[in-house]
Amino acid sequence: MSEQKINEVITTAELLKHWQGHRNLTRRVIEAFPEETIFSHRIGGMRCFADMVMELLAIAGPGVMEIVNGSQATLNEHFEHQNQKALLLEKWDESTEILNAYVPKILKDQFHNPIKAFGQYDGTVLSTILYYIDNEIHHRAQGYVYLRDLGVEPPAFWDRP
Amino acid sequence: MSEQKINEVITTAELLKHWQGHRNLTRRVIEAFPEETIFSHRIGGMRCFADMVMELLAIAGPGVMEIVNGSQATLNEHFEHQNQKALLLEKWDESTEILNAYVPKILKDQFHNPIKAFGQYDGTVLSTILYYIDNEIHHRAQGYVYLRDLGVEPPAFWDRP
Repeated sequence: MSEQKINEVITTAELLKHWQGHRNLTRRVIEAFPEETIFSHRIGGMRCFADMVMELLAIAGPGVMEIVNGSQATLNEHFEHQNQKALLLEKWDESTEILNAYVPKILKDQFHNPIKAFGQYDGTVLSTILYYIDNEIHHRAQGYVYLRDLGVEPPAFWDRP
Repeated sequence: MSEQKINEVITTAELLKHWQGHRNLTRRVIEAFPEETIFSHRIGGMRCFADMVMELLAIAGPGVMEIVNGSQATLNEHFEHQNQKALLLEKWDESTEILNAYVPKILKDQFHNPIKAFGQYDGTVLSTILYYIDNEIHHRAQGYVYLRDLGVEPPAFWDRP
């Protein structure tokens, strides 16, 4: 273990692995929804899970590209999914590749820099990325309740390869 | 900003602040439940939110003390809450103090050390703490759905002082 490694609580590579582990689990939560229910099932006036997934897709790829490129991203939480889960999963996999390509480009000394994500949310690069991950965990967990309510056993929370 | 700070993606102090920000929000979610419902309301065969809170309490304080003291902690997810929210909140505040006292004692070069949390969960100090935080976000979000189902507006997810 290098001296540099010892001085870090978490490395960029670990942060990416951590996030992709969560994203892999979220992907399996999407898959677990019976096709039609992901676009229709709701509890207590909340959004359907597909709407939450579109929010996550709007954030992850554009959000990380914004950090790397330094040019303001636009928050676009809707696309034509045609009520097809396969299209959500296709976009999900595209985002996975974007994160793999862009997160390693974030410079180590950049993480404590202030940014205004999507032109409106103040934070540092680090707090912003943690927010993106936390927001995904938050909405995915709501998907867990939807699945349970539908009588579907969700994938195990701890299983994040 | 010191050279050391630049080399870190996240510092121990930031990790504690991040966690306590989440714990402050979780506390407000507990408070938001109408007294009796936190011990009774369920969706899809899941646990009531008080049971999830007891899991979080079983993990945070003992889990961090285990890391610092190096002696195996016992996972005890139940205590006599007498169906009183005030007792949950009292325990919550005790945990807050324990974390404030113990997290700063984790040595920087300790975060990548392997541990077996509660004698059974393999990971590093870092992955274990991230798991504890993620697990809290996960269950709290399920509490959000319970609250919405009860017609109660939960506190804003992004509001974490």
